[in-house]
Formats: sequence, C-alpha cells, structure tokens
Amino acid sequence: MIEWLSDPIDTMNETDFLQAQEKQNNLTKPQGSLGLLESIAINISALQKTQYPNVNHAQIIIYAADHGIAQENVSAFPQAVTAEMVKNFSAGGAAISVLSKQHGLSLQVVNLGLVAKIPAMVLVENHVISKGTKSFLQQQAMTKEQLIQAFNAAKNKVDQIKKNDCQLLIVGEMGIANTTSASALVCALESIEPEELTGLGTGIDSGGLEHKIMIIKQSLKHHNAFLNSPLKILQIFGGFEIAALTASYIRSAQMGIISLVDGFIGTVAALFAIRINPLCKPWMIFTHQSAEQGHKKVLEIINAIPLLYFNMRLGEGSGAALAYPLIRSACLLQNEMASFSSASVSEKLD
Amino acid sequence: MIEWLSDPIDTMNETDFLQAQEKQNNLTKPQGSLGLLESIAINISALQKTQYPNVNHAQIIIYAADHGIAQENVSAFPQAVTAEMVKNFSAGGAAISVLSKQHGLSLQVVNLGLVAKIPAMVLVENHVISKGTKSFLQQQAMTKEQLIQAFNAAKNKVDQIKKNDCQLLIVGEMGIANTTSASALVCALESIEPEELTGLGTGIDSGGLEHKIMIIKQSLKHHNAFLNSPLKILQIFGGFEIAALTASYIRSAQMGIISLVDGFIGTVAALFAIRINPLCKPWMIFTHQSAEQGHKKVLEIINAIPLLYFNMRLGEGSGAALAYPLIRSACLLQNEMASFSSASVSEKLD
Repeated sequence: MIEWLSDPIDTMNETDFLQAQEKQNNLTKPQGSLGLLESIAINISALQKTQYPNVNHAQIIIYAADHGIAQENVSAFPQAVTAEMVKNFSAGGAAISVLSKQHGLSLQVVNLGLVAKIPAMVLVENHVISKGTKSFLQQQAMTKEQLIQAFNAAKNKVDQIKKNDCQLLIVGEMGIANTTSASALVCALESIEPEELTGLGTGIDSGGLEHKIMIIKQSLKHHNAFLNSPLKILQIFGGFEIAALTASYIRSAQMGIISLVDGFIGTVAALFAIRINPLCKPWMIFTHQSAEQGHKKVLEIINAIPLLYFNMRLGEGSGAALAYPLIRSACLLQNEMASFSSASVSEKLD
Repeated sequence: MIEWLSDPIDTMNETDFLQAQEKQNNLTKPQGSLGLLESIAINISALQKTQYPNVNHAQIIIYAADHGIAQENVSAFPQAVTAEMVKNFSAGGAAISVLSKQHGLSLQVVNLGLVAKIPAMVLVENHVISKGTKSFLQQQAMTKEQLIQAFNAAKNKVDQIKKNDCQLLIVGEMGIANTTSASALVCALESIEPEELTGLGTGIDSGGLEHKIMIIKQSLKHHNAFLNSPLKILQIFGGFEIAALTASYIRSAQMGIISLVDGFIGTVAALFAIRINPLCKPWMIFTHQSAEQGHKKVLEIINAIPLLYFNMRLGEGSGAALAYPLIRSACLLQNEMASFSSASVSEKLD
C-alpha cells in the first residue's frame, strides 16, 4: 500500500559488532562494569558501522493531532488542550521545551490534524490531514488515503533531517485521548482484553477507566471483521500522530538514524513499526517504562528493556529527551576513554 | 570524637515543601506525570528553601587510597591499579573524566593514601595519611588519629567548595580491594553474614568470591569485641577514601550541598553517614543500583530508591555523574515550565 515501507534497512554485521566489543573491552575499567552503557555503545557502533558512535546531531519532532474518540469522554482533559499545548510548545513552556533547551536539541512541532485552527507560530509546521480523526466507536478513524498522508508526512520529515546529518531522532506526540486510541490499537493487533491494557491516561478516575474500557470493547466488536493487518488496524483506531510515529521509526531505520522511543504511545507505535518492518527494531532504543498500565505489557511484547523507570506518563517525547544524555554518555565513553595500553593501566590478574 | 560531626543540618520545613508542590502541580502537565522528577525537584526546593531549585554549580571529587586487605588476594586487579587510575583521571582517560567533561563539571582527585609515590599531576591533590591502610585480617586498618585525618580532609574540601557556591557534590572513590572493605563494614555494622553481602567486585571468579568471604569472616571474628560504634567500625575495616566519603556526605548536608551517591562503596559510606548523623539523609540522592551483590541490600537498609538500574559496577562516581543531567532536568522543569494560567492551557475536567 505504501511502497517505501519495505525499503531496505541496514542490519548490524558481526565484524562491526565484535570490533566495537573488542574496543569497549580494552577501555580502562573492568569488563562489563559500565553495564547497559556498554551494550548501547556497541550496538550504535555496529549500526553506524564505525568505531566512533555518535549521536551528537539529534533532533526532536512532536506530532500533534486530535482524536474523534475524545468526544466519548475518555480523557481527563478537554480536547482544546491539544491545540493549547501546541502553543505552549511554540512558546517554550512545556516539559519537552525545557528538556530540548537543556540538551541543545532543536524542536519541531508538526500539526497533522488539530480540531482548532491555529495561527502561524514559531517551531510549528501545519500539515493538516483533517480536523481530527473520526470517533472509532462508530466508524474508521481515518480513510486509507489519510493514513498514507500521515505516513508520508513523517517520511518527508525524516528525509529532510537526514539531509542535515541527523544521527538520532526523538519523536513525541500530543493528542488528547490518544491513550484510548493506543490501547485499542494494541488490543486489536495482539488480541488482548482491554481490561489488561487500558490505563488512566492523563488521570481519569476508576469510573472513567471503566467507561474507557467499555468504549474500547464496543469499538473492537464493531470493527472486528476488518482487523486483518497492522495498517488496517492503524487506519481504524489510530491517530494521525500515532501513524506518523510508526512511519518515523521505519523511515529513520531506513535512513540510518537511531530513534529514541518515549512512553506508552511511542511504544505502541513502535510495535506497529516492528510488525510492518521488523528490521527497524535494532534502530530503536526504548527509553523508559511509564506509569501507564499497558506500557509494561507492550514492552514485553516487543521484548524491549527500557532504560528508566521514572513513573512518568506525560508523552511529548519527554522521557526520551530525559534519557538522551545517557545515550550520549554511552557513545562518549566508547570514544574518549583511554585503553589499558594507552594509559599504562595494569590489566586483570589471571 | 570529631566535634563537627554533630554540627546542625537544615531540615525541610512543611511550608517550603508545600509551596514547591503547589508550584509543581500548576505546571502544564497532568499532576504527577513527571514521576520521580517531581519529587526530586520538590525535595531540592524544600532543602534549598527556594522556589527555584538549582544544581548548576556542581563538582566531582574522587578520593583515592590503597587498602592493606589487598594483600590477601581479594581483588581481580593488582594494587598498582589504584595509582595508575589516579594518573588516568589526571590525563582525562577514565570513565569519570569523560562524564565530567560531558557535563562541564570540574573534577578533583584527592590522594589520601596510595602505596605508590606519584609525581605532581594536574587535578590531583596529595593528602597522604599513610601509604595504604593495614590489612584488617590481622589488625585495625587505621588508627583513630588516621580516621580523624580522613574525616577532616573531606570536611576541608567541602568547606572549600562551599566558598565557591557549589550546590551539588559528587564524591567518587578509587581503591583496589575496597569492595572487600565495604562489605566487611556493612556486615560489622548491621550484623549481616558475609555470604549475603559480598560480591564479585571488579570481577573475581566464584573461587575468588569464596576466598573473599572467608577473609571477611575471619576478620569479623578477629575484631568482634571492638565493633561497638560506626566510627570504630570505620577505623577497623575502612579505607581512607570510604571514611572521606562518609564525612563528605555529613559535611555537605551541614553546608546545604546536595550529594549524589554513586554505587556500592558510596552507599556503604552513606549508610555510615546516616548512622552517625541521620539528618544528612534527605541531602543525599541515590543515583543507581549497581551489579555488586550487596548494593541492593544496603539500599534497602537505608530505605533508598535508586534512580537508575544500569548494572554498572565501576565506582569513581561514574553512576552519579551519569545521573547528574537527570537531576538538572528535574530542577529546570520546576523552574522553566509554564503554569496552566500563564500558558492559558485548560485544566483537568471535574
């Protein structure tokens, strides 16, 4: 349906991996003593086919869009917040704004389909596919054509940042009600009961949770006959921003760019990316396990070990941006530490 | 015995804490959605008695010293490595060198008692108490006077950096065989069996571990009649660098400086600091849980929740330095995010 999805993705070769491991093992520290940082550095080395892994050129893109399902009272916040937060990203007042500034990363926001019309703003690009998706309680969230538009918007962004030598991409999302969309997506793709996966999102209460689960159950039943591929499921339950995240992970891998995956929404999009093109998985680093109930489960499905357990549940790419300096540390240690021989440090006793 | 140890330590007051919490709750995100970062920012606010928590002025000090117990073959590396690594710190080739450079933190190394005589080197100060401690298998590792010297060396360093407005201090350590010392210290202080606590250190094998446990058991038995206070236990089993860490945590709290606690050795020193002056505990942030077997146990004794689970086991303050940008993120988010009202973002629905 979208031809570029099956474009080739570079895989690690054993020689690059072993060379990176050999280099890491000769750094002035007990072998293995940098723990997770060692495997991160070795993997990035092998993916980038270099002995000097580098993620200094990094970038954050937030995809924002509204969800028709928000009209079913599934969120603790009103739908207006999606557009209000886009303004907040532009003005520098959001969590991701602060983190991007701390780490010197450029931040771009792409409006793929807010309900509200917004004025021109710095950092914000408008690629409105439609003023929000439709409510999937009654109909498919988007048309096939709209899904393709969301995918291609993300592809074009990745191709653009590749021209600027971007080595690492953080994609974040903003969309009131998108944990409902993400939960429905996983339930449909993996045949999981909504009770097992659905969480409190931005902070509904237990009554709200029961209602949210009921809405997802009804929706799954309504569309049951059509849930026959990841792309079709994305079209039925997805948001434009979730589709863009999925496409971004795939295209980034095709372009040789590392992706940092954020929280529940990001990981759900990553699951779809892996189901569509499994070779993208090594290019993704899963940065944290959030407080959202379903996140642990989705990480388990992917067999991904997250870096941080900070009990965050904000989205926007905030957990990934928080973890960015840790990935940089892994690379810098691999590149800049002395070896036992260069520093004349005695090696381990036999 | 050392009078300044009981100097007063500021505690949080409820008003400062509640004001910081109120401010955090009005930032443009669902309440609680920044997870651990929120409690870090609120605690630092309350400790610093300000609505603008700040850890930008930070510093790393590594205390290095040799251990008499190293002569009992308890380490995977030869004792010469302590001095060799001090040279490596000075030359910028160690893990902590790379991390300090990444985060723009100044690094100082204090030689409290290497066996080897070292030439003058940049970044390294010499305050040699003795050329290593004695082997605690046969005798007390240090004299009472030497313990006081180690404590006062650390006090003087903290007082000095306080004059430069340091807000956060990372103390690291280097000393071949110091996991043996640290394990014996905890077993003696908390009446724990060595089997439960002793780990592989820099990488001994299972035969080496049995031997290490046996050495600790014999040492505990030898000194059993004299294990009557934290200070006496530090004198018997400690290293100069471990004593300096303990003193550093206490003095930093007295001076209003946040300490980032690193791995097993750092956490053992923190345990002693808390037993000597419990009010220092809120001033310490426990940055990670290492791969060393006893670390989890000591964190549990202190009732401390570490930030990272990276399976590191290097020491040098490396885990604490790795975590530093996360603490900075917590503060920056508290200081720079917009509030719901300032950004005109709608609040949660009733």
